Amino acid sequence: MQWYLVATLLTVLTSSQGILTTLSQTNGSYKYDYATVPFLAEVFKLAVSSLLLWKECQKSPLPKMTTEWKTVSLYPIPSVIYLIHNNVQFATLTFVDTSTYQIMGNLKIVTTGILFRLFLGRRLSNLQWMAIVLLAVGTTTSQVKGCGEASCDSIFSAPIPGYMLGVLSACLSALAGIYTEFLMKKNNDSLYWQNIQLYTFGSIFNLAKLIVDDFRGGFENGPWWHRIFNGYTVTTWLVVLNLGSTGLLVSWLMKHADNIVKVYSTSMAMLLTMTLSTFLFDFKPTLQLFLGIVICMMSLHMYFAPPNMLLDMPLTVKSGEEEKLIEVSVDRRTRS
Amino acid sequence: MQWYLVATLLTVLTSSQGILTTLSQTNGSYKYDYATVPFLAEVFKLAVSSLLLWKECQKSPLPKMTTEWKTVSLYPIPSVIYLIHNNVQFATLTFVDTSTYQIMGNLKIVTTGILFRLFLGRRLSNLQWMAIVLLAVGTTTSQVKGCGEASCDSIFSAPIPGYMLGVLSACLSALAGIYTEFLMKKNNDSLYWQNIQLYTFGSIFNLAKLIVDDFRGGFENGPWWHRIFNGYTVTTWLVVLNLGSTGLLVSWLMKHADNIVKVYSTSMAMLLTMTLSTFLFDFKPTLQLFLGIVICMMSLHMYFAPPNMLLDMPLTVKSGEEEKLIEVSVDRRTRS
Repeated sequence: MQWYLVATLLTVLTSSQGILTTLSQTNGSYKYDYATVPFLAEVFKLAVSSLLLWKECQKSPLPKMTTEWKTVSLYPIPSVIYLIHNNVQFATLTFVDTSTYQIMGNLKIVTTGILFRLFLGRRLSNLQWMAIVLLAVGTTTSQVKGCGEASCDSIFSAPIPGYMLGVLSACLSALAGIYTEFLMKKNNDSLYWQNIQLYTFGSIFNLAKLIVDDFRGGFENGPWWHRIFNGYTVTTWLVVLNLGSTGLLVSWLMKHADNIVKVYSTSMAMLLTMTLSTFLFDFKPTLQLFLGIVICMMSLHMYFAPPNMLLDMPLTVKSGEEEKLIEVSVDRRTRS
Repeated sequence: MQWYLVATLLTVLTSSQGILTTLSQTNGSYKYDYATVPFLAEVFKLAVSSLLLWKECQKSPLPKMTTEWKTVSLYPIPSVIYLIHNNVQFATLTFVDTSTYQIMGNLKIVTTGILFRLFLGRRLSNLQWMAIVLLAVGTTTSQVKGCGEASCDSIFSAPIPGYMLGVLSACLSALAGIYTEFLMKKNNDSLYWQNIQLYTFGSIFNLAKLIVDDFRGGFENGPWWHRIFNGYTVTTWLVVLNLGSTGLLVSWLMKHADNIVKVYSTSMAMLLTMTLSTFLFDFKPTLQLFLGIVICMMSLHMYFAPPNMLLDMPLTVKSGEEEKLIEVSVDRRTRS
């Protein structure tokens, strides 16, 4: 399977996630407990991965599975990072409003690039760094508050701790992705076996969250096993299936491609969701959305296009008073 | 003189132009006839160029000057194009509001690139084309109407003829620049001699405009020679000197650099003006201005940085299921 087909599928599914979630509301509010959705998605991913591993075990050679505790013990760490991230997110939102938080969320693209370089030791060209910054700028542009929006608070007017927590949040979110990539590529264990370990811990952590919510809410809506399918419609189930499927695709990408591919996928998905929303939910198309799409498309091309495609034309380099025409053809030089 | 020093000076002066023009107002309105400013600037440029040509004539070898009518007759054409452009601009504004017109004005950057390729036969790499589009996107981003602005009309709601005239206006404005570059590079005549021809026709056309205005206004404010210095302050004179100086710098760039350098210069000037205005005139800094500046800086680097600076890092090219690390070092290959 080509990585870009998986990335495209991830874009489409991530994009439908936002739309399905909106459609799953009844009269503008959720009739079900949204916290149950990620738990069920983890269980779904665990079930699918178990089934696929079982099928893999029927064939020879048997899939490689490392079962020593030293390796298995690394798998709860992404869940721990997400847990910390959720709490930092909560703390950030006491300082800044949700739209400022959303804007700061684009920092995650840049922090992913930085951690990709620092922790995974992957080198990027200057052009690729510029592409990553432009991707973040492009997604941010599409989110610029337009004329006539309700709240007009400037992004630059939040208190300093709000920005610091926002940066921390972006780092943690990137770290979870980078760590997962490290884990998936660490050995050539079967992807399904790695998934099972990841999602077992994921299910446990999500279940723990439901139980903690029960205690915090004083069992007002009953224990979690009473709440779990309450108010579920077909659309809610589609949300669960969709979230589970995107998780499986992300795992695949972490093993066979990388975090940058994932970041491009999800950024493009956000723009696709905004574009589809203008048709589905009667939003007006904005100039900033159009500009954001153009910027992200340029960034995509800059990051992934082979250098000879970008530079095989003669370049005019100016020096001093006159112009020299230097023929730079990377294409030809690569062949020689 | 290095072209980038001239370009930087042009940026600073073009940027001061906007600020000086605002400062030349008394209580928010012009106490002088603004139409007299471009005329006086043309006369100033003509005087400076004549002086410089005269000085050049004192030295040997004598500057090259083509005086045959066939060549001289090409010099009024830029003025004619600007005249048509002004009328198209007027017609466009009957269909669209000024802010939509301003946004569409950024198209000029792209049309300049296209005419640069078509009429001057200059080839650009894919990356440079992307840089030009990004420059236009960046300047547009900085102009996105923010939250809480008076008029909330969508850029996408103007009538079709408005867009068509906007495109025509962008083409004419680019054509004037491209034609001037063609003229200045056509032969190796003295720059000052070329300027004298250009500005003589410029002065005549601007004077004609003043006279036409007189007739249109029914001589309400007296003939132009009565109005010309009316209400002039020191700041107004600075506006004239500034406009004249930027004109001289543009001429120099047309001869020794090119239209793309000029377009970068004036785009950067616009962003500089907006940034300075937030300090001088108590405007609030907007997210879109910040994003626009980042985009334009990236574009500048993409267009002018030597390819080896952009690509001398190893590039990760993904193909099929696995990743191959291809070392692409343009730098090393160029040396070998």
